[in-house]
Amino acid sequence: MARKVAILLGQDFEDSEFKVPYDRLKAEGFEVDIIGREAGEELRGKKGKVTVKATRSIADARPREYDALVIPGGYSPDKLRADERFVRVVREFDALKKPLAAVCHGPQLLITAGLVKGRTLTAWSTIQEDLRQAGANVKDEPVVKDGLWITSRKPEDLEQFADALIAALRS
Amino acid sequence: MARKVAILLGQDFEDSEFKVPYDRLKAEGFEVDIIGREAGEELRGKKGKVTVKATRSIADARPREYDALVIPGGYSPDKLRADERFVRVVREFDALKKPLAAVCHGPQLLITAGLVKGRTLTAWSTIQEDLRQAGANVKDEPVVKDGLWITSRKPEDLEQFADALIAALRS
Repeated sequence: MARKVAILLGQDFEDSEFKVPYDRLKAEGFEVDIIGREAGEELRGKKGKVTVKATRSIADARPREYDALVIPGGYSPDKLRADERFVRVVREFDALKKPLAAVCHGPQLLITAGLVKGRTLTAWSTIQEDLRQAGANVKDEPVVKDGLWITSRKPEDLEQFADALIAALRS
Repeated sequence: MARKVAILLGQDFEDSEFKVPYDRLKAEGFEVDIIGREAGEELRGKKGKVTVKATRSIADARPREYDALVIPGGYSPDKLRADERFVRVVREFDALKKPLAAVCHGPQLLITAGLVKGRTLTAWSTIQEDLRQAGANVKDEPVVKDGLWITSRKPEDLEQFADALIAALRS
Protein backbone atom coordinates (compact mmCIF):
# COMPACT_ATOMS: atom_id res chain seq x y z
CA MET A 1 0.00 0.00 0.00
CA ALA A 2 1.33 3.41 -0.98
CA ARG A 3 2.16 5.66 1.90
CA LYS A 4 0.64 9.09 1.98
CA VAL A 5 2.10 12.55 2.45
CA ALA A 6 0.37 15.89 3.11
CA ILE A 7 1.65 19.19 1.71
CA LEU A 8 0.28 22.42 3.23
CA LEU A 9 -0.02 24.98 0.47
CA GLY A 10 -1.28 28.54 0.04
CA GLN A 11 -1.04 31.20 -2.65
CA ASP A 12 2.35 32.49 -3.76
CA PHE A 13 4.33 29.47 -2.61
CA GLU A 14 7.92 29.22 -3.86
CA ASP A 15 7.38 27.21 -7.04
CA SER A 16 10.28 24.78 -6.79
CA GLU A 17 9.80 24.23 -3.06
CA PHE A 18 6.46 22.64 -3.85
CA LYS A 19 7.41 21.00 -7.14
CA VAL A 20 10.71 19.30 -6.28
CA PRO A 21 9.48 17.46 -3.16
CA TYR A 22 6.11 16.70 -4.83
CA ASP A 23 7.73 15.20 -7.94
CA ARG A 24 10.25 13.23 -5.90
CA LEU A 25 7.51 11.81 -3.65
CA LYS A 26 5.32 10.82 -6.62
CA ALA A 27 8.29 9.24 -8.40
CA GLU A 28 8.92 7.15 -5.28
CA GLY A 29 5.32 5.91 -5.29
CA PHE A 30 3.87 7.98 -2.46
CA GLU A 31 0.36 9.38 -2.59
CA VAL A 32 0.39 13.13 -2.01
CA ASP A 33 -2.47 15.35 -0.83
CA ILE A 34 -2.19 19.08 -1.38
CA ILE A 35 -4.04 20.64 1.52
CA GLY A 36 -5.33 24.18 0.97
CA ARG A 37 -8.09 26.40 2.31
CA GLU A 38 -10.63 24.71 0.00
CA ALA A 39 -10.44 21.52 -2.07
CA GLY A 40 -10.14 22.48 -5.74
CA GLU A 41 -8.70 25.93 -5.02
CA GLU A 42 -6.17 26.89 -7.70
CA LEU A 43 -2.83 27.72 -6.06
CA ARG A 44 -0.16 29.62 -7.93
CA GLY A 45 3.55 29.83 -7.28
CA LYS A 46 4.94 33.31 -6.74
CA LYS A 47 7.12 32.98 -9.83
CA GLY A 48 4.14 31.90 -11.94
CA LYS A 49 5.90 28.68 -12.99
CA VAL A 50 3.72 26.19 -11.13
CA THR A 51 -0.05 26.08 -10.70
CA VAL A 52 -1.79 23.27 -8.80
CA LYS A 53 -5.16 22.53 -7.30
CA ALA A 54 -5.64 21.72 -3.65
CA THR A 55 -6.79 18.11 -3.40
CA ARG A 56 -8.20 18.49 0.10
CA SER A 57 -9.49 21.32 2.27
CA ILE A 58 -7.89 22.10 5.60
CA ALA A 59 -11.30 21.50 7.20
CA ASP A 60 -11.10 17.84 6.08
CA ALA A 61 -7.41 17.30 6.84
CA ARG A 62 -6.83 14.33 9.16
CA PRO A 63 -3.17 14.08 10.22
CA ARG A 64 -3.67 10.41 11.18
CA GLU A 65 -4.19 9.55 7.50
CA TYR A 66 -0.69 10.69 6.56
CA ASP A 67 2.84 9.45 7.10
CA ALA A 68 4.54 12.83 6.82
CA LEU A 69 3.88 16.56 6.49
CA VAL A 70 5.67 18.93 4.08
CA ILE A 71 5.58 22.75 4.30
CA PRO A 72 7.01 24.55 1.23
CA GLY A 73 8.17 28.16 1.48
CA GLY A 74 7.59 31.40 -0.39
CA TYR A 75 4.79 33.68 0.81
CA SER A 76 2.50 30.69 1.44
CA PRO A 77 3.49 29.89 5.06
CA ASP A 78 2.84 33.42 6.34
CA LYS A 79 -0.62 33.33 4.72
CA LEU A 80 -1.40 29.86 6.09
CA ARG A 81 -0.41 30.71 9.65
CA ALA A 82 -3.02 33.48 9.69
CA ASP A 83 -5.58 30.63 9.63
CA GLU A 84 -5.71 28.79 12.97
CA ARG A 85 -6.80 25.54 11.27
CA PHE A 86 -3.38 25.16 9.58
CA VAL A 87 -1.61 25.93 12.84
CA ARG A 88 -3.63 23.22 14.63
CA VAL A 89 -2.84 20.64 11.93
CA VAL A 90 0.88 21.37 12.31
CA ARG A 91 0.65 20.88 16.08
CA GLU A 92 -1.23 17.62 15.56
CA PHE A 93 1.43 16.23 13.17
CA ASP A 94 4.11 17.11 15.70
CA ALA A 95 2.19 15.42 18.53
CA LEU A 96 1.66 12.28 16.40
CA LYS A 97 5.44 11.91 16.00
CA LYS A 98 5.40 11.83 12.21
CA PRO A 99 8.11 13.24 9.93
CA LEU A 100 7.63 16.98 9.46
CA ALA A 101 9.62 18.66 6.68
CA ALA A 102 9.69 22.46 6.24
CA VAL A 103 11.80 24.56 3.89
CA CYS A 104 12.62 28.28 3.54
CA HIS A 105 9.73 30.29 5.09
CA GLY A 106 7.95 27.03 6.04
CA PRO A 107 9.22 27.19 9.66
CA GLN A 108 7.14 30.36 10.16
CA LEU A 109 4.24 27.95 10.70
CA LEU A 110 6.28 26.12 13.36
CA ILE A 111 6.89 29.41 15.19
CA THR A 112 3.19 30.28 15.22
CA ALA A 113 2.39 26.75 16.39
CA GLY A 114 4.64 27.43 19.41
CA LEU A 115 6.84 24.43 18.64
CA VAL A 116 10.34 25.79 18.03
CA LYS A 117 11.66 26.59 21.51
CA GLY A 118 14.56 24.25 22.26
CA ARG A 119 14.34 22.54 18.85
CA THR A 120 17.19 22.53 16.34
CA LEU A 121 16.37 23.66 12.83
CA THR A 122 17.15 25.85 9.85
CA ALA A 123 15.12 28.14 7.54
CA TRP A 124 15.42 30.99 5.04
CA SER A 125 18.11 33.40 6.24
CA THR A 126 15.71 36.05 7.58
CA ILE A 127 13.57 33.46 9.37
CA GLN A 128 16.65 32.04 11.10
CA GLU A 129 16.76 35.13 13.31
CA ASP A 130 13.03 34.88 14.11
CA LEU A 131 13.69 31.28 15.16
CA ARG A 132 16.67 32.23 17.33
CA GLN A 133 14.65 34.88 19.12
CA ALA A 134 11.85 32.34 19.64
CA GLY A 135 14.34 30.11 21.48
CA ALA A 136 15.34 27.63 18.76
CA ASN A 137 18.84 26.36 18.06
CA VAL A 138 19.53 27.44 14.50
CA LYS A 139 22.02 25.91 12.09
CA ASP A 140 22.83 27.39 8.71
CA GLU A 141 23.08 24.06 6.86
CA PRO A 142 21.33 22.57 3.78
CA VAL A 143 19.43 19.98 5.83
CA VAL A 144 18.98 19.97 9.59
CA LYS A 145 17.42 16.97 11.32
CA ASP A 146 16.09 17.02 14.87
CA GLY A 147 14.13 13.91 15.74
CA LEU A 148 11.42 13.72 13.08
CA TRP A 149 11.87 17.30 11.90
CA ILE A 150 13.67 17.95 8.63
CA THR A 151 14.34 21.58 7.69
CA SER A 152 16.13 23.28 4.81
CA ARG A 153 16.92 26.86 3.80
CA LYS A 154 16.24 27.51 0.12
CA PRO A 155 15.66 26.13 -3.39
CA GLU A 156 19.32 25.09 -3.71
CA ASP A 157 18.85 22.67 -0.79
CA LEU A 158 15.81 20.91 -2.28
CA GLU A 159 17.36 17.69 -3.56
CA GLN A 160 18.98 17.03 -0.17
CA PHE A 161 15.73 18.03 1.54
CA ALA A 162 13.76 15.53 -0.57
CA ASP A 163 16.42 12.84 0.04
CA ALA A 164 16.09 13.30 3.79
CA LEU A 165 12.27 13.27 3.65
CA ILE A 166 12.15 10.08 1.59
CA ALA A 167 14.72 8.40 3.84
CA ALA A 168 12.57 9.26 6.87
CA LEU A 169 9.46 7.86 5.17
CA ARG A 170 11.29 4.64 4.27
CA SER A 171 12.74 4.06 7.72
CA MET B 1 13.13 74.58 7.14
CA ALA B 2 11.21 71.45 6.19
CA ARG B 3 11.87 68.47 8.35
CA LYS B 4 12.95 65.28 6.69
CA VAL B 5 11.69 61.71 6.91
CA ALA B 6 13.24 58.47 5.63
CA ILE B 7 11.15 55.58 4.31
CA LEU B 8 12.85 52.17 3.95
CA LEU B 9 11.44 50.47 0.87
CA GLY B 10 11.99 47.27 -1.10
CA GLN B 11 10.14 45.40 -3.84
CA ASP B 12 6.58 44.21 -3.27
CA PHE B 13 5.77 46.65 -0.49
CA GLU B 14 2.10 46.95 0.47
CA ASP B 15 1.03 49.76 -1.84
CA SER B 16 -1.09 51.82 0.54
CA GLU B 17 1.32 51.39 3.44
CA PHE B 18 3.86 53.38 1.46
CA LYS B 19 1.46 55.77 -0.25
CA VAL B 20 -0.74 56.91 2.64
CA PRO B 21 2.09 57.93 5.00
CA TYR B 22 4.10 59.37 2.07
CA ASP B 23 1.22 61.52 0.82
CA ARG B 24 0.34 62.67 4.33
CA LEU B 25 3.95 63.65 5.07
CA LYS B 26 4.31 65.55 1.79
CA ALA B 27 0.97 67.33 2.35
CA GLU B 28 2.27 68.44 5.75
CA GLY B 29 5.40 69.92 4.16
CA PHE B 30 7.96 67.28 5.11
CA GLU B 31 10.74 66.24 2.79
CA VAL B 32 10.73 62.49 2.25
CA ASP B 33 13.59 60.26 1.10
CA ILE B 34 12.75 56.79 -0.18
CA ILE B 35 15.74 54.66 0.76
CA GLY B 36 16.25 51.52 -1.33
CA ARG B 37 19.11 49.23 -2.29
CA GLU B 38 20.16 51.65 -5.04
CA ALA B 39 19.17 55.24 -5.77
CA GLY B 40 16.91 55.30 -8.83
CA GLU B 41 15.77 51.67 -8.40
CA GLU B 42 12.16 51.28 -9.46
CA LEU B 43 10.15 49.80 -6.61
CA ARG B 44 6.73 48.26 -7.20
CA GLY B 45 3.94 47.61 -4.76
CA LYS B 46 2.77 44.01 -4.52
CA LYS B 47 -0.69 44.98 -5.77
CA GLY B 48 0.80 46.82 -8.76
CA LYS B 49 -1.00 50.05 -7.82
CA VAL B 50 2.03 52.11 -6.80
CA THR B 51 5.47 52.40 -8.42
CA VAL B 52 8.16 54.73 -7.07
CA LYS B 53 11.86 55.30 -7.46
CA ALA B 54 14.26 55.14 -4.55
CA THR B 55 15.66 58.62 -4.00
CA ARG B 56 18.66 57.41 -2.01
CA SER B 57 20.68 54.23 -1.70
CA ILE B 58 21.02 52.46 1.62
CA ALA B 59 24.81 52.88 1.26
CA ASP B 60 24.33 56.67 1.43
CA ALA B 61 21.67 56.70 4.15
CA ARG B 62 22.65 58.88 7.10
CA PRO B 63 20.13 58.57 9.97
CA ARG B 64 21.37 61.88 11.46
CA GLU B 65 19.90 63.72 8.45
CA TYR B 66 16.36 62.59 9.25
CA ASP B 67 13.78 63.38 11.87
CA ALA B 68 11.93 60.08 11.64
CA LEU B 69 11.99 56.65 10.04
CA VAL B 70 9.02 54.87 8.40
CA ILE B 71 8.90 51.15 7.53
CA PRO B 72 5.93 50.15 5.34
CA GLY B 73 4.82 46.51 5.18
CA GLY B 74 4.04 43.94 2.51
CA TYR B 75 6.87 41.66 1.38
CA SER B 76 9.36 44.54 1.48
CA PRO B 77 10.51 44.25 5.14
CA ASP B 78 11.46 40.57 4.88
CA LYS B 79 13.53 41.37 1.77
CA LEU B 80 15.19 44.39 3.38
CA ARG B 81 16.17 42.54 6.54
CA ALA B 82 18.18 40.07 4.46
CA ASP B 83 20.54 43.02 3.80
CA GLU B 84 22.56 43.89 6.92
CA ARG B 85 22.83 47.57 5.85
CA PHE B 86 19.09 48.10 6.38
CA VAL B 87 19.26 46.36 9.75
CA ARG B 88 22.12 48.65 10.84
CA VAL B 89 20.23 51.78 9.77
CA VAL B 90 17.22 50.69 11.85
CA ARG B 91 19.46 50.17 14.90
CA GLU B 92 21.03 53.59 14.36
CA PHE B 93 17.63 55.35 14.21
CA ASP B 94 16.62 53.64 17.43
CA ALA B 95 19.87 54.63 19.14
CA LEU B 96 19.46 58.26 17.98
CA LYS B 97 16.06 58.44 19.77
CA LYS B 98 14.11 59.53 16.72
CA PRO B 99 10.50 58.57 15.93
CA LEU B 100 10.36 55.17 14.30
CA ALA B 101 7.08 54.13 12.67
CA ALA B 102 6.48 50.61 11.34
CA VAL B 103 3.29 49.05 10.00
CA CYS B 104 2.13 45.51 9.17
CA HIS B 105 5.22 43.38 8.34
CA GLY B 106 7.49 46.40 9.04
CA PRO B 107 8.30 45.18 12.58
CA GLN B 108 10.08 42.16 11.04
CA LEU B 109 13.01 44.56 10.59
CA LEU B 110 12.84 45.45 14.28
CA ILE B 111 13.03 41.75 15.22
CA THR B 112 16.10 41.19 13.05
CA ALA B 113 17.68 44.33 14.52
CA GLY B 114 17.33 42.70 17.96
CA LEU B 115 15.29 45.61 19.30
CA VAL B 116 11.91 44.19 20.29
CA LYS B 117 12.55 42.39 23.58
CA GLY B 118 10.68 44.21 26.35
CA ARG B 119 9.20 46.78 23.94
CA THR B 120 5.46 47.25 23.42
CA LEU B 121 4.22 47.16 19.85
CA THR B 122 1.82 45.81 17.27
CA ALA B 123 2.12 44.38 13.74
CA TRP B 124 0.32 42.28 11.11
CA SER B 125 -1.49 39.43 12.87
CA THR B 126 1.04 36.72 11.96
CA ILE B 127 3.99 38.89 12.98
CA GLN B 128 2.40 39.55 16.38
CA GLU B 129 3.24 35.97 17.39
CA ASP B 130 6.84 36.30 16.12
CA LEU B 131 7.11 39.43 18.28
CA ARG B 132 5.67 37.70 21.35
CA GLN B 133 8.12 34.84 21.02
CA ALA B 134 10.95 37.36 20.65
CA GLY B 135 10.00 38.82 24.04
CA ALA B 136 7.90 41.83 23.02
CA ASN B 137 4.68 42.99 24.67
CA VAL B 138 2.14 42.84 21.87
CA LYS B 139 -1.11 44.76 21.65
CA ASP B 140 -3.71 44.19 18.95
CA GLU B 141 -4.63 47.86 18.49
CA PRO B 142 -4.67 50.25 15.49
CA VAL B 143 -1.77 52.35 16.82
CA VAL B 144 0.59 51.38 19.62
CA LYS B 145 3.08 53.91 20.98
CA ASP B 146 6.08 53.01 23.11
CA GLY B 147 8.43 55.91 23.62
CA LEU B 148 9.35 57.00 20.09
CA TRP B 149 8.04 53.86 18.44
CA ILE B 150 4.75 53.98 16.57
CA THR B 151 3.38 50.71 15.19
CA SER B 152 0.22 49.70 13.37
CA ARG B 153 -1.27 46.47 12.03
CA LYS B 154 -2.69 46.88 8.52
CA PRO B 155 -3.94 49.19 5.77
CA GLU B 156 -7.14 50.00 7.70
CA ASP B 157 -4.99 51.58 10.46
CA LEU B 158 -3.06 53.91 8.13
CA GLU B 159 -4.79 57.21 8.77
CA GLN B 160 -4.33 56.82 12.53
CA PHE B 161 -0.77 55.65 11.93
CA ALA B 162 0.00 58.76 9.86
CA ASP B 163 -1.72 61.00 12.46
CA ALA B 164 0.52 59.56 15.21
CA LEU B 165 3.66 59.92 13.07
CA ILE B 166 2.93 63.54 12.20
CA ALA B 167 2.10 64.36 15.82
CA ALA B 168 5.45 62.87 16.89
CA LEU B 169 7.29 64.93 14.27
CA ARG B 170 5.53 68.12 15.36
CA SER B 171 6.18 67.61 19.07
